[in-house]
Amino acid sequence: MDNFFFGTEAESRLQFFVNDCITKKKRIFLLCDENTEKYCLPILQSLSKFAFLDKFVLKSGENSKSIDNATLIWIYLLEQRADKDAVLVALGGGVVTDLAGFVAANFKRGIDLVLLPTSLIGQVDAALGGKNAVNIDNAKNQIGTFKKADIIFIFPQFISTLPKIEIFSGFAEMLKHALIVDAVYWEKLKDSDFTIDMINNELILTSVNIKSQICQQDRFENHLRKKLNFGHTIGHAIECYYLSNNQSIPHGHAVAEGMLSAAYISYLKNMLYLSQLQEIKTVIRRFFPPLSIPKNDYSLIYQYTLSDKKHSSQSANFTLLTSIGQSIVNQDVSKKEIIEAMIL
Amino acid sequence: MDNFFFGTEAESRLQFFVNDCITKKKRIFLLCDENTEKYCLPILQSLSKFAFLDKFVLKSGENSKSIDNATLIWIYLLEQRADKDAVLVALGGGVVTDLAGFVAANFKRGIDLVLLPTSLIGQVDAALGGKNAVNIDNAKNQIGTFKKADIIFIFPQFISTLPKIEIFSGFAEMLKHALIVDAVYWEKLKDSDFTIDMINNELILTSVNIKSQICQQDRFENHLRKKLNFGHTIGHAIECYYLSNNQSIPHGHAVAEGMLSAAYISYLKNMLYLSQLQEIKTVIRRFFPPLSIPKNDYSLIYQYTLSDKKHSSQSANFTLLTSIGQSIVNQDVSKKEIIEAMIL
Repeated sequence: MDNFFFGTEAESRLQFFVNDCITKKKRIFLLCDENTEKYCLPILQSLSKFAFLDKFVLKSGENSKSIDNATLIWIYLLEQRADKDAVLVALGGGVVTDLAGFVAANFKRGIDLVLLPTSLIGQVDAALGGKNAVNIDNAKNQIGTFKKADIIFIFPQFISTLPKIEIFSGFAEMLKHALIVDAVYWEKLKDSDFTIDMINNELILTSVNIKSQICQQDRFENHLRKKLNFGHTIGHAIECYYLSNNQSIPHGHAVAEGMLSAAYISYLKNMLYLSQLQEIKTVIRRFFPPLSIPKNDYSLIYQYTLSDKKHSSQSANFTLLTSIGQSIVNQDVSKKEIIEAMIL
Repeated sequence: MDNFFFGTEAESRLQFFVNDCITKKKRIFLLCDENTEKYCLPILQSLSKFAFLDKFVLKSGENSKSIDNATLIWIYLLEQRADKDAVLVALGGGVVTDLAGFVAANFKRGIDLVLLPTSLIGQVDAALGGKNAVNIDNAKNQIGTFKKADIIFIFPQFISTLPKIEIFSGFAEMLKHALIVDAVYWEKLKDSDFTIDMINNELILTSVNIKSQICQQDRFENHLRKKLNFGHTIGHAIECYYLSNNQSIPHGHAVAEGMLSAAYISYLKNMLYLSQLQEIKTVIRRFFPPLSIPKNDYSLIYQYTLSDKKHSSQSANFTLLTSIGQSIVNQDVSKKEIIEAMIL
């Protein structure tokens, strides 16, 4: 299980962590972005009674998750004479926590890593499970390694600092958790009217627990963990497609689209009832409008599915649904099925 | 223990490895440099009956061990559609094997790594023990991680392709192995006249075993493995000093100088008899002439010892000798002692 603390428990443990570092003379370096510096750092400082003066501030956005930025942070740490006892604390969304994991894993062969995910998607997904990555050359998440965070502090109050589009992104992963393993959770999510109040602690904690438990049982992604890839094969391909046109799309929106396509493929393969596909489509379309990708570009997106890191052969490898709340990994999907499924 | 094969056993196992990859449809990518492409690849091809057509050729030299080259190799692998089942085979000295380890550890969260060290220093040191690194900003080996090679093939016949200065570099590490744990081995090494014939399989294998056994007992460098740092604190600082002047020095020569300084510090601290220090100096000076570093720059080198990744506090941390063949780790050494010890 990831070593995470949630809500009020996180508040008391954060103070303990800072005091422990001070006692052991472990230097704390903060990685954040312009947004989290402005909106979340003051909350963090008040909770921990610590200034976090040694900090590296990234520009906000997916483009920051680059090898170049990892290199700049390593140079910064070297200039600051960070040693092997240093602790890297990440305050931010998936971009910041992914980059921090990559930096910490490879700095002097590994320093301590503490994550404070500030986005909903970070709290229910990116910060959990001990994976990290940076983007390279339009290819998302191809470079990275496994590194378990030493501590993850989850403060749901950070969510209220987010723009609504960011909350949607996290909500897509929550829908995914429900679809792949938890039909009861799906019932709770699907009827929500999805205001900030709706994203309550109980729902976030359900997702945190689903993700953590799956990752605990399959740390290095050999089998069970592939369930979490549901929607991500086409989702990542859509993101690559946008990146290659110098555009971007919220990760959750791409994943939502990928989940819909994967559900449609599940139906095409006679795994999923039409009524369940329709229910999934209704719920997803309520939050995520269709993308306007020209039909001529569908084969381009198919090409990107082949370079997804999560497939390890020449045919595309999918996680599909056998019903709402049940999924099956390592399914071969043809080019024809993928292109047909993108029409939804 | 590292999964290594030596000499004639390596020859038969290499053929088996290649056939196994072909059967399992695992694609092999070769990383080499201009020298090993010219002198060692033909030997490898004849031993394995395999062409190694998918290859990335580096410029020879320490400058190739950079983040920029790691990035170029990642982009090359992505362009070649290398998947998670790909195998990276490194044919080269410490620069090539270190870089390959870093690339393989971070490509799609880890692909298989096979090392064929071609230099003496690679065979007795760099390729063993599951560490990798790249250089950044004049700082050596600061960025890297732990990744155990899946197989290491050691062919002593590659040594004969080396210039003599390269053989000296490996010999420095062999002397180190003797000094830190094996007085009998020291006796065998010290009287050698050090021609290529001298570097016989038995001596190489002794060093391979010493290094492997130490690393096996302490994979993540918590205690015992620090013995292998003997000579490297000042040695790395000397290399950084040369790099910062846009010059370079063979790693082994820097380590030899570092071992001599560390032996002198051991004597200064009343740990080592003067007669043993003198014996060490005689042997080292027979192979490695004194460096002409201006006295005014000694404090610069002291500064570089503080940024060595292997120390984790504000004072310099050394491995010292208590006699020839016995060593002790985690010894605090002052600025005064370091500067005094550089005069030898």
